[in-house]
Amino acid sequence: MAMTGVLRPGHTQLRVLNLEESVDFYTNVVGLVETGRDASGRVYFKCHDERDHNSLILRESNCSGMDFYAFKVLDGDTLNRLESDLNAYGISTERIPAGEMLETGERVRFEIPTGHIIELYADKTEVGDGLGYINPDVIIEGRKGISPLRLDHWQVHGADLDGSRDLFINVLGFKLVERILGEDGKTDMAVWLSCSTKAHDIAFVRDERSNTVHHAAYLLDTWEHVLKAADLMTKHRVSIDIGPLRHGITRGTTIYAFDPSGNRFETFCGGYNFYPDMKPYTWTWDELGTAIFYHTRQLNERFLTVVT
Amino acid sequence: MAMTGVLRPGHTQLRVLNLEESVDFYTNVVGLVETGRDASGRVYFKCHDERDHNSLILRESNCSGMDFYAFKVLDGDTLNRLESDLNAYGISTERIPAGEMLETGERVRFEIPTGHIIELYADKTEVGDGLGYINPDVIIEGRKGISPLRLDHWQVHGADLDGSRDLFINVLGFKLVERILGEDGKTDMAVWLSCSTKAHDIAFVRDERSNTVHHAAYLLDTWEHVLKAADLMTKHRVSIDIGPLRHGITRGTTIYAFDPSGNRFETFCGGYNFYPDMKPYTWTWDELGTAIFYHTRQLNERFLTVVT
Amino acid sequence: MAMTGVLRPGHTQLRVLNLEESVDFYTNVVGLVETGRDASGRVYFKCHDERDHNSLILRESNCSGMDFYAFKVLDGDTLNRLESDLNAYGISTERIPAGEMLETGERVRFEIPTGHIIELYADKTEVGDGLGYINPDVIIEGRKGISPLRLDHWQVHGADLDGSRDLFINVLGFKLVERILGEDGKTDMAVWLSCSTKAHDIAFVRDERSNTVHHAAYLLDTWEHVLKAADLMTKHRVSIDIGPLRHGITRGTTIYAFDPSGNRFETFCGGYNFYPDMKPYTWTWDELGTAIFYHTRQLNERFLTVVT
Amino acid sequence: MAMTGVLRPGHTQLRVLNLEESVDFYTNVVGLVETGRDASGRVYFKCHDERDHNSLILRESNCSGMDFYAFKVLDGDTLNRLESDLNAYGISTERIPAGEMLETGERVRFEIPTGHIIELYADKTEVGDGLGYINPDVIIEGRKGISPLRLDHWQVHGADLDGSRDLFINVLGFKLVERILGEDGKTDMAVWLSCSTKAHDIAFVRDERSNTVHHAAYLLDTWEHVLKAADLMTKHRVSIDIGPLRHGITRGTTIYAFDPSGNRFETFCGGYNFYPDMKPYTWTWDELGTAIFYHTRQLNERFLTVVT
Repeated sequence: MAMTGVLRPGHTQLRVLNLEESVDFYTNVVGLVETGRDASGRVYFKCHDERDHNSLILRESNCSGMDFYAFKVLDGDTLNRLESDLNAYGISTERIPAGEMLETGERVRFEIPTGHIIELYADKTEVGDGLGYINPDVIIEGRKGISPLRLDHWQVHGADLDGSRDLFINVLGFKLVERILGEDGKTDMAVWLSCSTKAHDIAFVRDERSNTVHHAAYLLDTWEHVLKAADLMTKHRVSIDIGPLRHGITRGTTIYAFDPSGNRFETFCGGYNFYPDMKPYTWTWDELGTAIFYHTRQLNERFLTVVT
Repeated sequence: MAMTGVLRPGHTQLRVLNLEESVDFYTNVVGLVETGRDASGRVYFKCHDERDHNSLILRESNCSGMDFYAFKVLDGDTLNRLESDLNAYGISTERIPAGEMLETGERVRFEIPTGHIIELYADKTEVGDGLGYINPDVIIEGRKGISPLRLDHWQVHGADLDGSRDLFINVLGFKLVERILGEDGKTDMAVWLSCSTKAHDIAFVRDERSNTVHHAAYLLDTWEHVLKAADLMTKHRVSIDIGPLRHGITRGTTIYAFDPSGNRFETFCGGYNFYPDMKPYTWTWDELGTAIFYHTRQLNERFLTVVT
Repeated sequence: MAMTGVLRPGHTQLRVLNLEESVDFYTNVVGLVETGRDASGRVYFKCHDERDHNSLILRESNCSGMDFYAFKVLDGDTLNRLESDLNAYGISTERIPAGEMLETGERVRFEIPTGHIIELYADKTEVGDGLGYINPDVIIEGRKGISPLRLDHWQVHGADLDGSRDLFINVLGFKLVERILGEDGKTDMAVWLSCSTKAHDIAFVRDERSNTVHHAAYLLDTWEHVLKAADLMTKHRVSIDIGPLRHGITRGTTIYAFDPSGNRFETFCGGYNFYPDMKPYTWTWDELGTAIFYHTRQLNERFLTVVT
Repeated sequence: MAMTGVLRPGHTQLRVLNLEESVDFYTNVVGLVETGRDASGRVYFKCHDERDHNSLILRESNCSGMDFYAFKVLDGDTLNRLESDLNAYGISTERIPAGEMLETGERVRFEIPTGHIIELYADKTEVGDGLGYINPDVIIEGRKGISPLRLDHWQVHGADLDGSRDLFINVLGFKLVERILGEDGKTDMAVWLSCSTKAHDIAFVRDERSNTVHHAAYLLDTWEHVLKAADLMTKHRVSIDIGPLRHGITRGTTIYAFDPSGNRFETFCGGYNFYPDMKPYTWTWDELGTAIFYHTRQLNERFLTVVT
């Protein structure tokens, strides 16, 4: 098959300091669709254009950050195969039973060298986007707030970047798309990895603060929607980190902002299409600023220091 | 691996009635980049954002149409495996030696049930997009004409749609993304197939005129580029079939037009992202017009009758 | 003063066959804001970005069409001056008392040579766009449907085009921006006139069917909003006349469609800025198609024949 | 007449430190069209969509900044009338003879209370945009660089803001569109004035550094062109002050950048349409940041301190 193995980022569980304030924020400002609440009080959301039941789970906690990051795989056989590949690679795995999350099948959970908890799963109830599968219309009316199309990718930080990068490439089938080299011209300071034709499905940044997350990214339709997102962020006095602007890396356009708990999120658009026969791009340390923020050509302090 | 097997439409050889007039058209109006000419007089082009040496080969002939349609596969092993899968499926194959086309490796050629000549290949010289692989800029200056990003897909016609559809799905790993059913509610009149996350890499339409092509599609950046393409078409008095408008199928935006030899081409933009876990969309016969042209909700005569 | 005299199209009274069906259409599909109903049953609307109380008045009737077309003028002195200029030009005028229309001051009404009833007025209650005048935000949330910014212009038909054209230019201070000449190369078959920096505030077409209207136009934000408008029209199965496409005349982009009573309206975007020191553009009869529909380069039958 | 008096910003003379470097910059990066050079060595430019001969004149000097700011008026009678109105208001004027600038008629020159040299003129040779006046196409091919549509407005600084504001309003017929009040809630710290339907044709900022300029602004087609402008600025390593982002004031989108001589320029797009019956917007001192940069909600040091 042409598209197989790991398909895409599927869901993440986010810790928020005040659940109802966050539900309001993700509903009315970010513009996600609430799809359910479970017995433990977690609240589930999907993007309006996603067909599976959920891609974001909010859990109230006294510290912000993400509990785990899950990728959907093609099917149950793939799940089994990847689990045994992980075990053969020396990674121990755990099975989380179907139903522990609403409408979500069995998950294979494991920790990667950068300290993050990753999950793979094959099944999540398909709820559709409301347009149906017979003679569908092309437009969803009544979209609220920023209203992204889908969960797009994560940028996570940890000390053993090399270990996580190799695991994703060698076991999970990801490809290296772009990299930033350190001052020594050899060490990967950051890598962008794809399991699809996206310019990235996950990025790793070398950082002593292992098991931290820099941002979750949501995909917007167009650059005009990026502008609207920025307008809405100011209208609702959301704390913007930076943007709108373009990345050198991926060529995507972006805004970074913070949710009420201090979790950074990105509204992302564009980016070139990647195929596994393409050579990776390399950025040198002296062009770090241009790599990340193509227009300002320098990083801002907050972007560098805040992770959760 | 996550992205494997057949990667994408790679090249096609187009018959044109007047070579130099066509070279001028594809250079200055469509805005492709000429990359070479071979001993037999064929002229090679690529889109400005494509990295491989060529995606369009013009051959002078006294009848328009396409000689063959080639897909790039991941690597040589994949090429060998797919050839033996094809043979096992009862399809005989031929090896076209490396070098028969400029900068292009060995090709596996075969005829499919709808009568079209399909090729698979793993190697084509990477010439890049001019931005380089170290600290690349994001913008190519001096783009001429319509200037598409890449070859996107083909729509081809033939009597044995079922045969070609099954071969692409069962042997080449494509997935069914959308279909139009006939009046009987059972027969596929047209199918859209993907080997990637694109909404389609090829489409087949049931038509007694086997081994014909409806159009080759080129990808544009944005809906604003679609408008500019339409403006340029009128500026150069290119014959427009229809558009700009949106498709119900794929949700893409489009213009169809004809080159000086009467070969239809599409300037296409957008379309949702497809993953192989998604259910296909089905269009019923009474909504055929809306399926194809979402805004006019009816087909025009020329769109239905002209193939080459 | 730099901007004086007649300012812009201010309101029009539209006859609809079924009032409540039309209120629903203009509210939920066109996306206007209902601002009031008067004792005679008329329903008032404004566009979300307009600051005055109303720009569209619906009146139930057994025949579609428009009762009158009103321009706002700078102030009361201007109103008096223009009335006496009209009288001096041989046009008799009538004063409609303040309050005959909700929140609207005294109107000077007169008939022009093409048979249309035109009104001038200086006062209409300012209700704002909801953003306020102190530290306003830039974005209005919860916009429904197509949601135009404002009433933009009208195209009206009548036999004595020359008479109405001269009156608008010589008495009301409009400028000729573009014209289509007839086959004789002399006669104006259509003229586009501006009282501002818009490419047109009103257009006249020579047509034996005097006192008829071809369309009222509403301004959209961007070409992307034009696409959304077309999508919404199909979603709601609005009858589209033609579009999206571009005009040669004005360079604007457009869709023409019909309300449930058969009144044509245009969703218009763009167009160059006009200044009174600019030479008018002339279109010859053989390029009539390109003038109106730059992409199709030909008129469709319905566009030519239907007026109300 | 509806549109009379002062029409629009017409030309400005800019001092640059190195003439040929600046000619290259304004030609290939900003994308203006060189239209002539005069005996004194000055180089003339126009924007591709402007019809008059020039809107920017470069003069080599050892200090950057602007020599004068000129507005085009409707005709010679208007020029005479405005000159006598200025004189009656106590402003002395000087006549610069026709031909002192290439293809430009007689200019009335005067100094305003903020120390700037302002000019009015009625005549400049119409050279067109290359599309002609008979059956014009809508698209200009071969546009280079950022390629703005036209000169849009200036922001100038000086101590006696009140004096210049009153002169522009009371004598030249401008209207107050937006204002920023100081901490006392009474004093105008900045005012945006319009002589047309633009949200501003000139802005004054209270600043002890009289006779200085903050920026000249050029109009871009769309928000997508703003992105392209930012991309080109980085490609050519132009020093960007800030952007792309949106203004609270005018709702326009923007990038500020510097030419090689340190003259700030703005690439501006959008902004609402203003009519003289509209109430001005007021911004309070505590919302200064949001007023200027709606997304960052704070001013940057360079934006506040650098004028030329």
